[in-house]
Amino acid sequence: MIKVAIVGGTGYTGAELLRLLALHPHAQVEIITSRSEEGVRVADMYPNLREAYPKLTFSVPEPEHLTACDVVFFATPHGVAHGLASEILQAGTRVIDLSADFRLENVQEWEQWYGQPHGAPDLLADAVYGLPEVNRGDIKDARLIAVPGCYPTAVQLGLLPLVEAGLADTQQIIASCASGVSGAGRAVKLGSLFCEASENMMAYAVAGHRHLPEIKQGLRRAAGAAVGLTFVPHLVPMIRGIHATMYATVVDRSVDVQALYEQRYANEPFVDVLPAGVLPQTRSVKGANMCRIAVQRPQNGDVLVIMSVVDNLVKGASGQAIQNMNIMFDLDEESGLDTAALIP
Amino acid sequence: MIKVAIVGGTGYTGAELLRLLALHPHAQVEIITSRSEEGVRVADMYPNLREAYPKLTFSVPEPEHLTACDVVFFATPHGVAHGLASEILQAGTRVIDLSADFRLENVQEWEQWYGQPHGAPDLLADAVYGLPEVNRGDIKDARLIAVPGCYPTAVQLGLLPLVEAGLADTQQIIASCASGVSGAGRAVKLGSLFCEASENMMAYAVAGHRHLPEIKQGLRRAAGAAVGLTFVPHLVPMIRGIHATMYATVVDRSVDVQALYEQRYANEPFVDVLPAGVLPQTRSVKGANMCRIAVQRPQNGDVLVIMSVVDNLVKGASGQAIQNMNIMFDLDEESGLDTAALIP
Amino acid sequence: MIKVAIVGGTGYTGAELLRLLALHPHAQVEIITSRSEEGVRVADMYPNLREAYPKLTFSVPEPEHLTACDVVFFATPHGVAHGLASEILQAGTRVIDLSADFRLENVQEWEQWYGQPHGAPDLLADAVYGLPEVNRGDIKDARLIAVPGCYPTAVQLGLLPLVEAGLADTQQIIASCASGVSGAGRAVKLGSLFCEASENMMAYAVAGHRHLPEIKQGLRRAAGAAVGLTFVPHLVPMIRGIHATMYATVVDRSVDVQALYEQRYANEPFVDVLPAGVLPQTRSVKGANMCRIAVQRPQNGDVLVIMSVVDNLVKGASGQAIQNMNIMFDLDEESGLDTAALIP
Amino acid sequence: MIKVAIVGGTGYTGAELLRLLALHPHAQVEIITSRSEEGVRVADMYPNLREAYPKLTFSVPEPEHLTACDVVFFATPHGVAHGLASEILQAGTRVIDLSADFRLENVQEWEQWYGQPHGAPDLLADAVYGLPEVNRGDIKDARLIAVPGCYPTAVQLGLLPLVEAGLADTQQIIASCASGVSGAGRAVKLGSLFCEASENMMAYAVAGHRHLPEIKQGLRRAAGAAVGLTFVPHLVPMIRGIHATMYATVVDRSVDVQALYEQRYANEPFVDVLPAGVLPQTRSVKGANMCRIAVQRPQNGDVLVIMSVVDNLVKGASGQAIQNMNIMFDLDEESGLDTAALIP
Repeated sequence: MIKVAIVGGTGYTGAELLRLLALHPHAQVEIITSRSEEGVRVADMYPNLREAYPKLTFSVPEPEHLTACDVVFFATPHGVAHGLASEILQAGTRVIDLSADFRLENVQEWEQWYGQPHGAPDLLADAVYGLPEVNRGDIKDARLIAVPGCYPTAVQLGLLPLVEAGLADTQQIIASCASGVSGAGRAVKLGSLFCEASENMMAYAVAGHRHLPEIKQGLRRAAGAAVGLTFVPHLVPMIRGIHATMYATVVDRSVDVQALYEQRYANEPFVDVLPAGVLPQTRSVKGANMCRIAVQRPQNGDVLVIMSVVDNLVKGASGQAIQNMNIMFDLDEESGLDTAALIP
Repeated sequence: MIKVAIVGGTGYTGAELLRLLALHPHAQVEIITSRSEEGVRVADMYPNLREAYPKLTFSVPEPEHLTACDVVFFATPHGVAHGLASEILQAGTRVIDLSADFRLENVQEWEQWYGQPHGAPDLLADAVYGLPEVNRGDIKDARLIAVPGCYPTAVQLGLLPLVEAGLADTQQIIASCASGVSGAGRAVKLGSLFCEASENMMAYAVAGHRHLPEIKQGLRRAAGAAVGLTFVPHLVPMIRGIHATMYATVVDRSVDVQALYEQRYANEPFVDVLPAGVLPQTRSVKGANMCRIAVQRPQNGDVLVIMSVVDNLVKGASGQAIQNMNIMFDLDEESGLDTAALIP
Repeated sequence: MIKVAIVGGTGYTGAELLRLLALHPHAQVEIITSRSEEGVRVADMYPNLREAYPKLTFSVPEPEHLTACDVVFFATPHGVAHGLASEILQAGTRVIDLSADFRLENVQEWEQWYGQPHGAPDLLADAVYGLPEVNRGDIKDARLIAVPGCYPTAVQLGLLPLVEAGLADTQQIIASCASGVSGAGRAVKLGSLFCEASENMMAYAVAGHRHLPEIKQGLRRAAGAAVGLTFVPHLVPMIRGIHATMYATVVDRSVDVQALYEQRYANEPFVDVLPAGVLPQTRSVKGANMCRIAVQRPQNGDVLVIMSVVDNLVKGASGQAIQNMNIMFDLDEESGLDTAALIP
Repeated sequence: MIKVAIVGGTGYTGAELLRLLALHPHAQVEIITSRSEEGVRVADMYPNLREAYPKLTFSVPEPEHLTACDVVFFATPHGVAHGLASEILQAGTRVIDLSADFRLENVQEWEQWYGQPHGAPDLLADAVYGLPEVNRGDIKDARLIAVPGCYPTAVQLGLLPLVEAGLADTQQIIASCASGVSGAGRAVKLGSLFCEASENMMAYAVAGHRHLPEIKQGLRRAAGAAVGLTFVPHLVPMIRGIHATMYATVVDRSVDVQALYEQRYANEPFVDVLPAGVLPQTRSVKGANMCRIAVQRPQNGDVLVIMSVVDNLVKGASGQAIQNMNIMFDLDEESGLDTAALIP
């Protein structure tokens, strides 16, 4: 059994790691940390986990305990993994970071978008961007994984086949996206209140969202050149789910885009290219580590419309983190992740 | 008092006409028709209208009764107004049609998108497209109004200042839109069930939605030339609300777009250009006859992002219909429409 | 025009006062106070009120300004009205308090349930419990109104006809109630988050809720003796609405309870006894100052089931407060309150 | 592997059987029937099951195919199992019926409540009421299981310890219950529309609900005498979940009711008595085969308040059906049912 520690277990991604790992046949959570909830039982905080974790208790993070585990997941605010990762890695324990701390390769860019000094620039060379559909080989040997953000997962998986094949005008791509409220985390903020978010839809961060540089970095790697991207996130009244709708101008209308997508993801266990004409629903991935994608070219025009859905807490965070762990530890990539989404 | 008849009062737009007209100081509903609900009291079908309409009862539509009214609203499925409008108009009663029957000037185009023969092509010359922000003068003298669709209202109001000023590349405009479930009406359909629509978001009709030709017709009139538009509607889990996010390439970066929008709508009582930096929320128009608009140019790039929200049942249907009535009958345009949206 | 001041205008009941008073033909909001939001425009905080209050700005409460108004509404946390009411009343300005400060006649009981010293016991003799269906006469002459709580309004209106007529076994009445999330106010609390409250229902405060003594006080007055009441509130995933289901043993099966209720409320503009067999829906009062009630005796047994619904922010708070104002200032009781609920 | 057939797989309980059985290590779905969807792939109807059932297709029910399976689940409208069960049982295949066909032992009572003749009275002697917490022994040897209804599961599990111990006044028990909308099934009905059910709460079937005789039958068996029960169901705006709040007068205040409940369910894998003071939330069982219960005696009075929650589609239907199968086939009772609920 792989011994797992989770640093920062009181947010939604921490809770989701616990829920998913409870089903994992080859991993066991040994430690979950929280400074504010020290001594509280997981079962008392998360009533859905009473049976799975009757005794596990939040503790203060102690490096010597963390390094006794095989892998440490960080489900923490930005900056925390910067401070702790180095010591853990030196002890030979692997790190899978769900925060944005190691997602951007450019230190200055990270500091600009996250508004604080980068705490571990020396670790960036070792960090692997944990999108298995792109980096599976590197993930296998990685010691430090930067798990992609939720929007970046949906948008990149939706655009990669097109961009890799050089079929889109990469000067101007639109990603019009929407997220359920859990994307904002478990922090108590006015805008996350039921009475503020229910029966409402709105765009936010139009001027610039932190996931923009992350998506552009991924697309640039795929395209081999800078990509012009307009990314607008919206908030919609549901708990879970990301819906990304991408608009790109196709440079060669003769290509069978449906076939292109199907081939690109033919061997991917967690990307599902829907049959032609079927459109993805966010609920079809609710609670499941899956990205479903459809592509259409309306009225035989030049504009391709690509739709991609993920559960922001699963394929967009905790499920993808476990998928990375499975790859790193040479397990079946689907271990613990083969449950179906909850409909209705 | 203006005597009002409503044909087809059992759907959501019919009920919304009743709700709004109950507050109108100069109009009174005399007749509401429904073949299926003949004899049923409005108060028994709509418990919110028990005080406003204690005695009004659904009746079968009889031309001689309808023509005794000053104006007849059609809140019917497509095709019904085609059959009845002529007789009513000949009797001197005005018609405000909330269906799509008279929205498209091109008969062939209408028949192609609505899949049935056009039942009243001879009336098209008299029909005025009831978007007051464009056609106020013609509406004043009109006898037959085609009330715009919900998406077309939000999208056109969002794009008009830009297109009229020739500031956008009209070859390729994107309208990525979302609607609450009431946009699908009160018909009992699987996809409109709570358990199908809640906790879910999906695109639909990507290959082609009936509102596409209507929007393109309006933009063409404004631009003086055909406009390339990609329109993708989405369904989101809320009762009311349209959120339209438009992406257009600006042809002259030096223009102050915020000022352009503010000037264009300076005298419009039902269009609110939000202060720079503020983004519209659908709930800010819930139940109110209002369109709120914001415009941003992220990262000082070429792409303008315009966001526009309406309540699909009010400014997107019944409220706009009453606004047309007010104009036609020389009333204060805000009569009966000056209520604030319901927050929370 | 009646000059109105609102102390504490940043919560949901304050915002609802603003929304409703904007429609009032004989009242105008002159002052709205908030220490934390001083200088902020109402229009910037509540986007639905941009048209109604383009210039009104939150200010710090100053007694000399408040007393220049005819009436001051308190929409404040418990204890605030205690401190300010006396000075305002002495200046001849009337006070309508939406908090619980003056609801309980017994000082010790108040202090026990609210966990703080009572700040104005000397004013209790002047305070009138603002349930017009019971105290209309006293309200007319009152200078200080204690507006009932949301649950107490729904439960008392549901039980009063029965209790006044001595038809129920008052030893043991059950009130199993549920509230939408806005009942918890606009404070940022974990349990009020969308992701915590959506797709969930739970009971709370089963051991004892502050509305229990208030309801028992009202029923005791109606019965002329102490009443045994079990009151259990639940939280349900909707924004607005109280649904109260009361269970009482009938002492005389021969009485026509439907007729009893209809007669009791025959002249009440804001209580609607539904026709026999029709059950109330919370949405039928959404946004409206109305209480709808149904009563049934299942299987001709001894147990009466009474169902009562209100919008917790309207008849359960701000609407009822304005109803009190109308009575106090000899206006038509329905002034500004005759709008229909929002369906759908 | 146990070969499973599901008759009537297009409703929510059928889909939930599929979802849960996909995780079951010892059972495999061989056949799923639907006359209306013959030839349609499960994967095309339920997008969440695309990976679990890539090839399974709806077929017309053929007795010779059904009897080739070890067990047949009926997820059908009332009356269907009456017609088919006999032939299947005679062939030696076991039947687990999720409909109400075999829940009531009294034929006349069944016919009265379900409004149709009982189609298989001769099978009633063999039918076992599938509430494992009461009938585990009989279930082990049963050939025909009547899976309890959703409300009956929540209410009986909540009341059994009290009634079995003779601690409640069984003359008058109140069960004030609420269900998410999926309790009404996947049928397209007006009241189940998003726009009708969202932002709304209402009681229904107050005069008499079909689950009333089922609950009374279960309580009568536990009490050894007829029980007086008032049962009022409510509809609340969530997809899944039953919340039952029961009110009973305790006959002996000295008993430690918390301990009584804990002991009664100490060995039950799917009943969780919460620690004293903790109240159950429906989301804590969302998607999970679990019933969580709390009991309180407010203000040390005579009235016990018992709260019980289940997911109506899992412990209230399909999960409980599988729990029965596990018992019948001598499997670990928790096989395939040990997943945690989905929070948030």
